[in-house]
Amino acid sequence: MVCSISWRVTSVVANIAADVAESLDEFELIRRLAATQRGVRDDVVLGIGDDGAVLEPMRGAQLVAVCDTLVAGRHFPNATDAFAIGWKALAVNLSDLAAMGALPQWALLALTLPERDANWVERFGAGFGALAKMSSVALVGGDTTRGPLTITVTALGAVAPMAALRRDRAQVGERICVTGVLGEAALGLAAAQAGRRDDRRFAHYLARLDRPEPQLALGQALLGLASACIDVSDGLVADLGHVAEASGVGLRLDLDAIPHPPFALGAALDLSRRAVIDLALAGGDDYLLAFTVPEACLPELRVRTTELRLDLHVIGVVTSESGIRLLTAEGGDYVPGRIGFNHFGNSDGE
Amino acid sequence: MVCSISWRVTSVVANIAADVAESLDEFELIRRLAATQRGVRDDVVLGIGDDGAVLEPMRGAQLVAVCDTLVAGRHFPNATDAFAIGWKALAVNLSDLAAMGALPQWALLALTLPERDANWVERFGAGFGALAKMSSVALVGGDTTRGPLTITVTALGAVAPMAALRRDRAQVGERICVTGVLGEAALGLAAAQAGRRDDRRFAHYLARLDRPEPQLALGQALLGLASACIDVSDGLVADLGHVAEASGVGLRLDLDAIPHPPFALGAALDLSRRAVIDLALAGGDDYLLAFTVPEACLPELRVRTTELRLDLHVIGVVTSESGIRLLTAEGGDYVPGRIGFNHFGNSDGE
Repeated sequence: MVCSISWRVTSVVANIAADVAESLDEFELIRRLAATQRGVRDDVVLGIGDDGAVLEPMRGAQLVAVCDTLVAGRHFPNATDAFAIGWKALAVNLSDLAAMGALPQWALLALTLPERDANWVERFGAGFGALAKMSSVALVGGDTTRGPLTITVTALGAVAPMAALRRDRAQVGERICVTGVLGEAALGLAAAQAGRRDDRRFAHYLARLDRPEPQLALGQALLGLASACIDVSDGLVADLGHVAEASGVGLRLDLDAIPHPPFALGAALDLSRRAVIDLALAGGDDYLLAFTVPEACLPELRVRTTELRLDLHVIGVVTSESGIRLLTAEGGDYVPGRIGFNHFGNSDGE
Repeated sequence: MVCSISWRVTSVVANIAADVAESLDEFELIRRLAATQRGVRDDVVLGIGDDGAVLEPMRGAQLVAVCDTLVAGRHFPNATDAFAIGWKALAVNLSDLAAMGALPQWALLALTLPERDANWVERFGAGFGALAKMSSVALVGGDTTRGPLTITVTALGAVAPMAALRRDRAQVGERICVTGVLGEAALGLAAAQAGRRDDRRFAHYLARLDRPEPQLALGQALLGLASACIDVSDGLVADLGHVAEASGVGLRLDLDAIPHPPFALGAALDLSRRAVIDLALAGGDDYLLAFTVPEACLPELRVRTTELRLDLHVIGVVTSESGIRLLTAEGGDYVPGRIGFNHFGNSDGE
């Protein structure tokens, strides 16, 4: 007995036509996503539509490969606009390439969707495509399947031989730096969760949450200057913890030097000053780079960040202790609160 | 009101320790998966553990990138052994590389798991790792997230410039070939679904279902010989349909020449002779290559396939008609039944 196999005799023509139609439907999803970025790059020998993509690696360069998954309800609320999901699925990967100092080239997209919703796919594709175009990334392949909404992007880029920025190269005495303000995405999330999406004071912060712009130009400007680099996706302290551990060093942070959102905006959401500082220390989804540089390189770093119109903040120093210390202006240790809303209700940090 | 943010003040040390512990836990999953294949390749400059992997592309070669997702309950039954899932997640991707004629090098794994189950991960890793080792593929990165069981693998390989096998190059008059027997995985699935996993007569077919071996050596042997190539994952007729469409040609298949499983084994599962033939024509999950070659290349093809100990079957010819015709020995058109069990209960062919 083979009860779960059903045989339906149909004509071979209908049979083949049905198979082709289904496959076209699948391909069509990916094609729509790719349509917005056609011709972005001339190093794509063969793009979407075959068993694989054929790509022309940059001569003499090394290849950098990154891969990140977003799961609905864990990495973004189920009701998130598809444009923001598409943008973010690529952004989190490009931020990883930025942290390696890589020039982004290509992306592959695995999209698991509960149902075929052409409108959703179009908005998703518009978000993915907008960032791809802005970053000169070509979508060269992928897969579409049915199932609970899950998006995995693999991004590929190039870096000069042995030049990639790593997290395990921080040296004692180096300065710890960031550019831009930390905790802005977390403030945006707090505003959204408080039902303040229409409050224009939070527009900038909601944009930082929904359309983070990976610091690709900064990553490349740091080549030859920074010793260690990481992207801040899970919160400044947590991510710098990886640098400290991988490099076998300690990090001392100067609390007053850490750029945070305005206290007044926090107050509008019933957040104390302390809570605003904690957003900067532990809020996720910033996608800014944190890096260490030898003191002697600070002048050149200032030149390069000024060219990129970025505000450079020197927030601490690498020490021979282990772990991370946060010092107040008075020299005391600061104890941040723990933020329990990592990735939207997921308390285990995934 | 920010009701979904909870603040818990803990010590900074506990805070950081918890974050690091969670991250280690995440990394640990991937590290375990990677452990079985350490040192497989010397072109991995920086593997798992940083924001991205750094890889040394093969000098003068082009890069081939493929990406496939398996969703539990759609691409495999929920109860499938984790070893088979791990093996298959890599196999479906390596089969795509084989179909491009690429030499496999690296893989990235995005694993979405309902819960942390060390035993499951170890078996999954053993399956993934066994095929990776056999194929000289290094796992260089990935992501682990929580959610419904979904596995996306991106595989990367190398191919000589402009030599990649494509599906859009079939020429009128060329012969259509396969090596090996079609429909074996489908027969294995039928045996499994009939509760005959312990019947030794089906052991070979269950192995073809659970541990398909991508035809990587064949793919490379076809470089310079085959004009068009595809891997048979959705069924011979459906996949050759893609070749016909992409190449703008027709394909005429000689029914008697298509290798299928023994009728006697089909009969043991209450399958008619016709049903067994239809398994070969439309059963999925074979992961054999189907390809077209100019007639003049057949002698050289025979030499190469004999070296690889593969049985070559010339199953048809490329025509200037459109679509696919299946001809019986008497010259009549054959009309196969439609198999309704594509990917385990998913009737839409994804």
